[in-house]
Amino acid sequence: MNPVTSSRGSQIRPITAHHANQLYQHGTLALLVPGLLEGTTTIGDLLTHGDTGIGTGEGLDGELIILDGVAYKVGSSGVAERVPDDFTMPFANVHHAAFQYQCERSDIGLKELNRRIVEANGRANTFFSVIVRGTFSFIKTRAVIKQQAPYPTLVEVADRQAMFLRHDVKGTMLGYFSPVMFHGAAVAGFHEHFLSDDHTFGGHVLDAVLDHGKIYSQVFDTLVQHLPVDDPSYREHDFSHDPIAEAITSAEGDTKR
Amino acid sequence: MNPVTSSRGSQIRPITAHHANQLYQHGTLALLVPGLLEGTTTIGDLLTHGDTGIGTGEGLDGELIILDGVAYKVGSSGVAERVPDDFTMPFANVHHAAFQYQCERSDIGLKELNRRIVEANGRANTFFSVIVRGTFSFIKTRAVIKQQAPYPTLVEVADRQAMFLRHDVKGTMLGYFSPVMFHGAAVAGFHEHFLSDDHTFGGHVLDAVLDHGKIYSQVFDTLVQHLPVDDPSYREHDFSHDPIAEAITSAEGDTKR
Repeated sequence: MNPVTSSRGSQIRPITAHHANQLYQHGTLALLVPGLLEGTTTIGDLLTHGDTGIGTGEGLDGELIILDGVAYKVGSSGVAERVPDDFTMPFANVHHAAFQYQCERSDIGLKELNRRIVEANGRANTFFSVIVRGTFSFIKTRAVIKQQAPYPTLVEVADRQAMFLRHDVKGTMLGYFSPVMFHGAAVAGFHEHFLSDDHTFGGHVLDAVLDHGKIYSQVFDTLVQHLPVDDPSYREHDFSHDPIAEAITSAEGDTKR
Repeated sequence: MNPVTSSRGSQIRPITAHHANQLYQHGTLALLVPGLLEGTTTIGDLLTHGDTGIGTGEGLDGELIILDGVAYKVGSSGVAERVPDDFTMPFANVHHAAFQYQCERSDIGLKELNRRIVEANGRANTFFSVIVRGTFSFIKTRAVIKQQAPYPTLVEVADRQAMFLRHDVKGTMLGYFSPVMFHGAAVAGFHEHFLSDDHTFGGHVLDAVLDHGKIYSQVFDTLVQHLPVDDPSYREHDFSHDPIAEAITSAEGDTKR
């Protein structure tokens, strides 16, 4: 393994093993299914738990990506914009970057790339993060569009998303892998967001072909699962009739690719 | 609410809100289902994450309960014995006690008591812990019996457990409630262990009637889910064919009552 490098390729500050092994998650994907879309944490709070992450804003306000401690949102325009510390979110993953260089790859589709990463690492039962930095010959993303209360369900919103296709884009794809056991809390398999180097393009990745790029991974031994326990809508909701697993797979999962 | 008291009724040391809000879990109930029963943490390590908890030993070696920083095991004899710091476990829950007094109850069955606690707190979607201290007019517990490798499945072991019935027992029942979303990682609903005040009796609670006693609760906003990511058996296991949900409900769940 090479020395630990950040997603930008530069040396990053030393961090404790404690932090490097933890994936912090606020909310669950399950709570998006019935439309519990109130923002229950802020970017400012999230950044105390890490410098790297993904998420969505209140009312599904865009696709978030946090790299090197800076948070960007991709909305229905497809363009990335920085978001302030008081921006609120119903769901997010964040961690302290301590990626290790894994390999270089060229001319490979996303699904095959992901399959090989899991196989190489033997990590289907653990949470880990992957960063792919390079040039994508093709990439297809989507961005959800901000909804107003009373909020629709996740499946209803899926019909109101913007889709984007780009060719020959340089950028960073940040993904989180979750074990099948945690489908519901997270999405089983990979959940990946993208940001182009020039910030003119990004979103939730639906498909991609990597022209050439470098792969970095970081394995977590701990999921720190934070729940919005003081949010009345969350506390009072009866999840027993929501189609959690199906809706998450349909809206977020690998099968879309 | 009364001041924070320990399970023994005495004042306990002040703790940080950070710790008081976290439930630490090592392993998952799901990994017990196919018989991944190797001990992958120790009592000594667990006690760094809390002073109160439940679990089981390597090979399902007894029912563990940790109260006031002291760990006890109830095996096939039904008698509680202290376990050393190097005792290993495949699964455990532990947290720093900061219970709040909730109410007194008398002449109430366990199922009804649990239903009322969830209802009163409106906490079906959050992790919380409950301690019941008092006299039980009836209590039925079981203790799993230590297995040797190659380990059997959880359902196979269920036929090899010892059952105990007692009347008029003074003691402490410690339970954890997990939201249905986390069935698999934990057991949805309550998971309760018991220790009699004289340490001559305990185990995993299957049924009980509280003659009279006091109820204390502690709500968590965070589940710290630690996985045995370096255990080869865990890493290599394919969970996709295991009857996770059914086996956990059958072996551990509320429906046994």
